[in-house]
Amino acid sequence: MRISELSEHSGIPVASIKFYIREGMLPRGTATSATRADYGDEHLARLRVIQALSDVRALPLARVKEILSLIDAPDETPYATLGRAVSALPPYADETNTDRARETIERLGLTYDERFAAVGQLEAAIRGIEAAGLTWDAETAARYAGPLLRVAAAELLPLAELSESEQVSYAVLGTAMYEPAILALRRLAHQHLLATRATDDDM
Amino acid sequence: MRISELSEHSGIPVASIKFYIREGMLPRGTATSATRADYGDEHLARLRVIQALSDVRALPLARVKEILSLIDAPDETPYATLGRAVSALPPYADETNTDRARETIERLGLTYDERFAAVGQLEAAIRGIEAAGLTWDAETAARYAGPLLRVAAAELLPLAELSESEQVSYAVLGTAMYEPAILALRRLAHQHLLATRATDDDM
Repeated sequence: MRISELSEHSGIPVASIKFYIREGMLPRGTATSATRADYGDEHLARLRVIQALSDVRALPLARVKEILSLIDAPDETPYATLGRAVSALPPYADETNTDRARETIERLGLTYDERFAAVGQLEAAIRGIEAAGLTWDAETAARYAGPLLRVAAAELLPLAELSESEQVSYAVLGTAMYEPAILALRRLAHQHLLATRATDDDM
Repeated sequence: MRISELSEHSGIPVASIKFYIREGMLPRGTATSATRADYGDEHLARLRVIQALSDVRALPLARVKEILSLIDAPDETPYATLGRAVSALPPYADETNTDRARETIERLGLTYDERFAAVGQLEAAIRGIEAAGLTWDAETAARYAGPLLRVAAAELLPLAELSESEQVSYAVLGTAMYEPAILALRRLAHQHLLATRATDDDM
């Protein structure tokens, strides 16, 4: 398809598409004449990814580029790639002392790897919870870890059926894009439980 | 304690404390002379809440005020208060058509209430997931909803032991402050599962 059709199908203005090409975020189309290029479904798919990360997740351009480059040139293992991809997603924790996170991770029997950005993110989260006067002890951590391990295991199931490059794209995008749904569902679950309990009380 | 001691205990500068008092976010201390006031533990606790919301969750001042006013003057039921509190937390979704969220909520057997901000948040999340080329169908939704209902139920358990005003404070702060821990734990669970699977493959 032509660039005008690519714009129509994606809903992204031609000027933005040209910008993404200049920035190396979107591959050039196949030249069909001196002034025309042909674009395929892979361009449309890539534009969707850019839009999802920059519009829906509101990530700055530099972070979107970082994630795209991981999708294009993954590290040796999905483990390493996912680790780096997570560093490109908010929150950008900058904790040097991660003792509390380490304690939680080890007590839960999870793998502790200080290079992994989520360790610092957990440390910052724990400090925030306690700063607000809320509890973070073994029981509280277990309340979250059990169900979230089940979520994570179910999310990784489809990986086996994907090619290696698809795995990385799925892991990176999945981490970024399912998070808002998880938070919304937890809030809806609270609301549902309060609503049904309130009804029980009325009867 | 004096304002200087309150500052020392909370780590918040005296000027900021005075600012919060002027803005009505922190109650005045009890005047002990024309120029001195006495502050108690309730002031320290309130400062912790302000700090957690504004620093850790990086909420703008107007949103912090909104949440504090909900804690101080809750709606008739915890259900209504929590609903309003969630509107003060990001993401600030502005969806008018919430058909996809409604479909998901009803299929999961949860309570659908269009006044509740998490409905629009779920709608935005679903659109983002699909815009990125990922799947949101009945099976995917169930993958998250089951474990998150368990999380939510466990989180609400301590509510029964709290007074009504404590309930609101706990529900509002809990919604805001445990979210980063949930996201970090999910990311750590992925990393753990990939790490242990990688090890399995090596053997």
